[in-house]
Amino acid sequence: MSLLDNTLVSIKPLDVKAMDEAQKALDYLLKPQGSLGRLEDIARQVAGITGKVKNTLDKKAILVMASDNGVTDEGIAASPRDFSMLVTDTMLRGISGVCTLARHAGAEVFVVDLGLEKDPPTEGLIKRKIRRMTSNFAKEPAMTRAEAIQAIEIGIEETTKLIQSGYNIIGTGEMGIGNTTTSSAMLHVFSGEPLDVVVGRGAGLDDNAFQHKKEVIRDAVALHKPNAADPLDVLSKVGGFDIAAMAGTYLACAAHRVPVLIDGFISGVAAVLAMRICPVARDFMLASHSSAEPGAQVVMRELNLEPYLNMGMRLGEGTGCAVAFHLIDASMFMMNYQGTFADIGVPPAISNLENK
Amino acid sequence: MSLLDNTLVSIKPLDVKAMDEAQKALDYLLKPQGSLGRLEDIARQVAGITGKVKNTLDKKAILVMASDNGVTDEGIAASPRDFSMLVTDTMLRGISGVCTLARHAGAEVFVVDLGLEKDPPTEGLIKRKIRRMTSNFAKEPAMTRAEAIQAIEIGIEETTKLIQSGYNIIGTGEMGIGNTTTSSAMLHVFSGEPLDVVVGRGAGLDDNAFQHKKEVIRDAVALHKPNAADPLDVLSKVGGFDIAAMAGTYLACAAHRVPVLIDGFISGVAAVLAMRICPVARDFMLASHSSAEPGAQVVMRELNLEPYLNMGMRLGEGTGCAVAFHLIDASMFMMNYQGTFADIGVPPAISNLENK
Repeated sequence: MSLLDNTLVSIKPLDVKAMDEAQKALDYLLKPQGSLGRLEDIARQVAGITGKVKNTLDKKAILVMASDNGVTDEGIAASPRDFSMLVTDTMLRGISGVCTLARHAGAEVFVVDLGLEKDPPTEGLIKRKIRRMTSNFAKEPAMTRAEAIQAIEIGIEETTKLIQSGYNIIGTGEMGIGNTTTSSAMLHVFSGEPLDVVVGRGAGLDDNAFQHKKEVIRDAVALHKPNAADPLDVLSKVGGFDIAAMAGTYLACAAHRVPVLIDGFISGVAAVLAMRICPVARDFMLASHSSAEPGAQVVMRELNLEPYLNMGMRLGEGTGCAVAFHLIDASMFMMNYQGTFADIGVPPAISNLENK
Repeated sequence: MSLLDNTLVSIKPLDVKAMDEAQKALDYLLKPQGSLGRLEDIARQVAGITGKVKNTLDKKAILVMASDNGVTDEGIAASPRDFSMLVTDTMLRGISGVCTLARHAGAEVFVVDLGLEKDPPTEGLIKRKIRRMTSNFAKEPAMTRAEAIQAIEIGIEETTKLIQSGYNIIGTGEMGIGNTTTSSAMLHVFSGEPLDVVVGRGAGLDDNAFQHKKEVIRDAVALHKPNAADPLDVLSKVGGFDIAAMAGTYLACAAHRVPVLIDGFISGVAAVLAMRICPVARDFMLASHSSAEPGAQVVMRELNLEPYLNMGMRLGEGTGCAVAFHLIDASMFMMNYQGTFADIGVPPAISNLENK
């Protein structure tokens, strides 16, 4: 059996018994039942993931998948392709947005190269290059089906290594000029939503380039006819290595029962891909923030998840995960340290304490 | 001149020059301009508050105003009035929701008694009792105008003490059974919104009690005819000591140029009160989370602010501030430590780096 197949069969549903026990523990905390809202939901979900009522997610990683996209030949991105290498280099130097915010959250950043066209000068990249850049999907499929599986499996392998090194919560991140185009194309096929809804301006396309970006996607979908019911077909025809590998991260986290954070739009499309491959994988995901990229709302609807943060962020890289780690931590801390009705000698039955 | 008047005249607008400098610094960070969204907005606002481009808000306090409300005689709250004392006691013992989340955020909690009916047994309360409980506003004004000013000034004094002890960011919190009723009544008068929009079920009123809560407010407003254009009239007729003192916190923070966090519904109505007393005070506020209490949306519209967190929390106490401290910290950390275009030898003019 392939690594992907092995991973899929080892994904089991959330532990309902642990979630019930977590709910009882939550109702015993000093507060009206449910009044800490989604902080309580997080604690219950994490219990379902790990099988333990109390958890400490103290070893945090953000795993960034970097790759270039051949479709940038069509002029659908505001930045030159070199910028993928340049920004990846700032990540390796620890000075990019995600590195700064991860440091603040006590998280480490790891960067995997799946298909950068140029190699960054700084050391530290995890070298898993499949080939330099995907094919231009305006002319041919972005990758072969075998490459699509290879990219997902690289994501599974690198994520599994982190988990085996003790990381107990993972955030997803990406770098690759052109990857809002691949993401919009995949989401368009998966969701059936029109291009006007799922395509955005990245961080700065003008009206003409924006129109062109939509036309490139429309024509590519007409050319390749990706089958929405076959996630690997969609991925290989109009996707990217970064999205594939991020889907691998979600699947590996589900298989190893580790909570995994969705970042923004691209990371969210990878989550949709993972869910299409294995629906249960969704239950191991937490949505960090509502990205300013318009398709992000479609992503959340597909996943039936609601972001915790309303920060208007659209940087990508995994920056939303870095900020959201704090919320997960706060939830764990509440569960582990908040006082209980036992502490004040009041039975939890009258736990409408503090109702006003 | 009174302390309140003195405070009001010392409130000056945000420092536009510092905000412009902050914007330049933000545009120099390694990212497309504006792509860190509201993390950037926070950094700019804090610069406008403190007058400095780079800030470290490392001494955090949550100031909880505790008081009882005579209108609870009308049976508008799900919990007995004793619970104000009981919950205040859990705060003094450090085991309540706000204490736990504040500890996680590295913040200290201070609790001021303005009008608790019963005194909690645990030491540590800041004793500024005006009298035991406000009057039942179903029958008479909740407090005199002199008491309203006194309560605001207590808030100013206690906040100023914290700031003088070095606290450089303050969160607001409250405890007092019946204070969603006082808050809804004040918001109804200030906003002109109907009771169905501004009144909620607190944490657990049934249909009959919910209906009754609205009738009590409707009748009280008809009886006292609070003047929406006179904030102190509204406060004294249908408000509470806790709300008054929280308004004092907002005003003192504005006067001393310290960022102040709004918590949930009650804290938000106090923010509206402060803004009605001094419109510029609003610019020193940050909205932490969108409370599940329905009137909270009206509050945010009145303030023209947007919460950062979408956590479905409705505990009060200042819990939303405790969680939001992390976001402010992340923003300061970004501003202080993220790499710049100078670090990679690229002029910021082409700062659409990472556009995709």
